Amino acid sequence: MPAMPTEFELIARHFTRPARAGGSVLLGVGDDCALLAPPAGEALAVSTDMLVEGRHFFPGADPEALGHKALAVNLSDLAAMGARPLAFTLALALPAADENWLAPFSRGLLALADAHGIPLVGGDTTRGPLNLCITVLGSVVSGDALRRDGAQPEDEIWVSGELGDARLAVEVLYGRLAIDPLPDAAAARLHRPQPRLALGLALRGIASAALDVSDGLLGDLAHILERSGVGAMVDAEAVPVGGVLRAQPPRMQLAFALNGGDDYELCFTAPRERHDAVLDAARRTGVPVTRIGHIVREPGLHLVDAGGRAMSLPSRSFDHFAEE
Amino acid sequence: MPAMPTEFELIARHFTRPARAGGSVLLGVGDDCALLAPPAGEALAVSTDMLVEGRHFFPGADPEALGHKALAVNLSDLAAMGARPLAFTLALALPAADENWLAPFSRGLLALADAHGIPLVGGDTTRGPLNLCITVLGSVVSGDALRRDGAQPEDEIWVSGELGDARLAVEVLYGRLAIDPLPDAAAARLHRPQPRLALGLALRGIASAALDVSDGLLGDLAHILERSGVGAMVDAEAVPVGGVLRAQPPRMQLAFALNGGDDYELCFTAPRERHDAVLDAARRTGVPVTRIGHIVREPGLHLVDAGGRAMSLPSRSFDHFAEE
Repeated sequence: MPAMPTEFELIARHFTRPARAGGSVLLGVGDDCALLAPPAGEALAVSTDMLVEGRHFFPGADPEALGHKALAVNLSDLAAMGARPLAFTLALALPAADENWLAPFSRGLLALADAHGIPLVGGDTTRGPLNLCITVLGSVVSGDALRRDGAQPEDEIWVSGELGDARLAVEVLYGRLAIDPLPDAAAARLHRPQPRLALGLALRGIASAALDVSDGLLGDLAHILERSGVGAMVDAEAVPVGGVLRAQPPRMQLAFALNGGDDYELCFTAPRERHDAVLDAARRTGVPVTRIGHIVREPGLHLVDAGGRAMSLPSRSFDHFAEE
Repeated sequence: MPAMPTEFELIARHFTRPARAGGSVLLGVGDDCALLAPPAGEALAVSTDMLVEGRHFFPGADPEALGHKALAVNLSDLAAMGARPLAFTLALALPAADENWLAPFSRGLLALADAHGIPLVGGDTTRGPLNLCITVLGSVVSGDALRRDGAQPEDEIWVSGELGDARLAVEVLYGRLAIDPLPDAAAARLHRPQPRLALGLALRGIASAALDVSDGLLGDLAHILERSGVGAMVDAEAVPVGGVLRAQPPRMQLAFALNGGDDYELCFTAPRERHDAVLDAARRTGVPVTRIGHIVREPGLHLVDAGGRAMSLPSRSFDHFAEE
């Protein structure tokens, strides 16, 4: 008899569902490769993220939320490119083939996948320390892609949604900040980020540069500045602070909103004359956006208060912040 | 100042090399996504494999060989599809940012990538238990792809190269088989598999089904049979046994050649009337191929000896084999 499938192979089959061909997918799970047909004339956008237990999520994290988040953070990269998602692969290392973990994990993962109409087209399941590696594939007309290197002097700098509540949740969960109970809104920001795909698509032809805010606004904006060879003037008081964080002291608000991480909002630049087009894209997609500053010719990132006075950049480290 | 890159970010930059646009790559490392332009009219082939320390490779494995193998096993999936490789992504979890490990790892990885002209277009580097996740992207005209579901009754069954030496090396390295020193040829089969990309490309339009032999010939062939709804008659004595394994007892030869794993050869089927075309493809690509049996209508995998007499299938487990 041919070899029996292992426990992991059975579970992989269970939660990857039957091969679904159709749309851009010519061949799904079950062969050596999946086959996709990106829309004619469009470029393929690819991004990979690896999430490790204890580093990107808490040991014992709710598997359903984790399934959502593992895909969401990858889709956020497509959103930041203005790409339309086509499909994704999942490679998963698990300490044990525990259906009580896999069932909710796959439920969370596939619910988000279904919400965006993208099939799981391949992957790998193996025994090992918990590790999730997702690769997302999307498509975008090459010239329309929202790259990081297109910001120009005088462009306005925008950010979607609100920032800092996810970081607040992290600090509470680590016991470094006492807010009991942790408000649901902050926990949801951490555990169930919503990739801004519709906004990313709506910003094609409008934004000059974009990325998603995963490591903290200022650190991520610095990537746009570096790749575009420009600088920025950011109005600290304009930065939209998360609803839960707004009840905290002003210095913590600023620190978490500017350097929090895990926000998965879009930070983007657009020419001044496209100001109304940006607002219109936000209205059409139901995602609020806020102008937080502008690009300057000279490299460097400057923070100013409402009166235009220079402020020092808050420390990126909460520990450091706490010691001040 | 913007946040300093972490040690891991620096190392990721170091070993991913500067973004290389050109060919199919419109945008490489350094943005939210890479952008690729697959050749017009071709489908995109995608495959992901995750390698975990202690499961797919020995703790303390030579990092240069590991870099080679991590990419090779993924390219082998493209070979089995008849796809031409375009690019790949790497996600890497490492216990520590150890340049003494990363330098040889990236050397082995990128040497193989360069040999096939494919750039590393993106990825992720993080701290965690050692884990390598590679996603390869290739292209193939959809109708030419070597799928698993096309085998037809009367088709001949072929395998490339020789089988079983990699498994022999595994058994020696685990101390379950005493061969001292382990011959270089067997170690090379385990540590430096050569993806059969040229053969896979040459078999387009000739082979009716194909896959790569990663888990053992019989277990993998069973996937073709299952997907194609057919059976097979395999001539045990025709199966090409690795040069090192040939010095071992006949029953071990059979067990390791049929069920060894880690061979990364191609197993494929082709109509009888394409027999000479198969041999010609092998000659043109310099990869020997051997006819090992034929497809039958009735499902099931049957092993026969040179006289056509039925043989029982050898156990897949070496432990079991040793106990017999």
